[in-house]
Amino acid sequence: MKAGALELGHASKMTKNGVNRGMSILDLFIRIIAIIATLGSAIAMGTTNETLPFFTQFVRFKAKYSDLPTFTFFVVANAIVSAYLVLSLGLSIYHIMRNRAQATRIALIFFDVAMLGLLTAGASASAAIVYLAHKGNTKTNWFPICQQYDSFCHRTSGSLVGSFAGVVLIILLVFLSAIALSRQSLNH
Amino acid sequence: MKAGALELGHASKMTKNGVNRGMSILDLFIRIIAIIATLGSAIAMGTTNETLPFFTQFVRFKAKYSDLPTFTFFVVANAIVSAYLVLSLGLSIYHIMRNRAQATRIALIFFDVAMLGLLTAGASASAAIVYLAHKGNTKTNWFPICQQYDSFCHRTSGSLVGSFAGVVLIILLVFLSAIALSRQSLNH
Repeated sequence: MKAGALELGHASKMTKNGVNRGMSILDLFIRIIAIIATLGSAIAMGTTNETLPFFTQFVRFKAKYSDLPTFTFFVVANAIVSAYLVLSLGLSIYHIMRNRAQATRIALIFFDVAMLGLLTAGASASAAIVYLAHKGNTKTNWFPICQQYDSFCHRTSGSLVGSFAGVVLIILLVFLSAIALSRQSLNH
Repeated sequence: MKAGALELGHASKMTKNGVNRGMSILDLFIRIIAIIATLGSAIAMGTTNETLPFFTQFVRFKAKYSDLPTFTFFVVANAIVSAYLVLSLGLSIYHIMRNRAQATRIALIFFDVAMLGLLTAGASASAAIVYLAHKGNTKTNWFPICQQYDSFCHRTSGSLVGSFAGVVLIILLVFLSAIALSRQSLNH
């Protein structure tokens, strides 16, 4: 009885497995791109500092990313997410080999979503500060600092890009995992 | 052949359906709590304004949430997410009645994750600004404004709580949906 059912569904299962494997390989690729994006962001922000070419007897004008706690959080968040993504490569490869794995896929969705939260938090908190640095705020007397620290501002703004790209990629990863989970129960 | 297999799996399927229905009802409850949390946040922030009791001939000292663009974004993000959650109640109820729905569950995961991103962005960007309002930053000459606008600061800080609670609840929702998707293919 079981053998007959297996034979009947054999052809469609072969195609299904092929598509599932393709999705798992896509998952692996997206993870690698996301690692590059988040790691690049962390490094770009982490190495940001600018010393202005003029100075008084007592003060040298310097700007470092760690002057603003939010930027420190940004670096930490990006570093954690890229480290997690490197670790998750193992599971991703495992899913290429074993299509029917379920518990690990659910675990992956859960951690992906948690890391998505962390990365989004870091990126958007920094975006709020970068916006303030560019525009300032007259109501609160917070002056724009980008006029003086021009290269500092360019660098910090630029490093947001990789982080937001990482956010989009991780949303895609969760979507792929959800589809993979549901496809396992098709044709039954 | 099929009837036999159905009868064999009947008892286990009944329990399985019961657990699945329980999870769908839990999903509905979490959504309702999340609506209250995000809507509360939006209203608390959106109605924030403080007029100081002293004023000069030309200037009244006022603080409104819309003085800071980030807080406006916070209100918009929370309003959008709570509106989405209200709409998603329909699908959630549909899942209680129809356990085996798949396409709608995947769609729900996708939109939940996207809304999670939006809500986290609003909450953490505002958190960065609230932190600045409390502590200020000596390096950039941004002074803390909370000494003057005390009640304004309390109100804005408080409204973050509901938003972050919403973030945690939506992570939980995605997790529940992922488990529900995977359970459909158990016992096959």
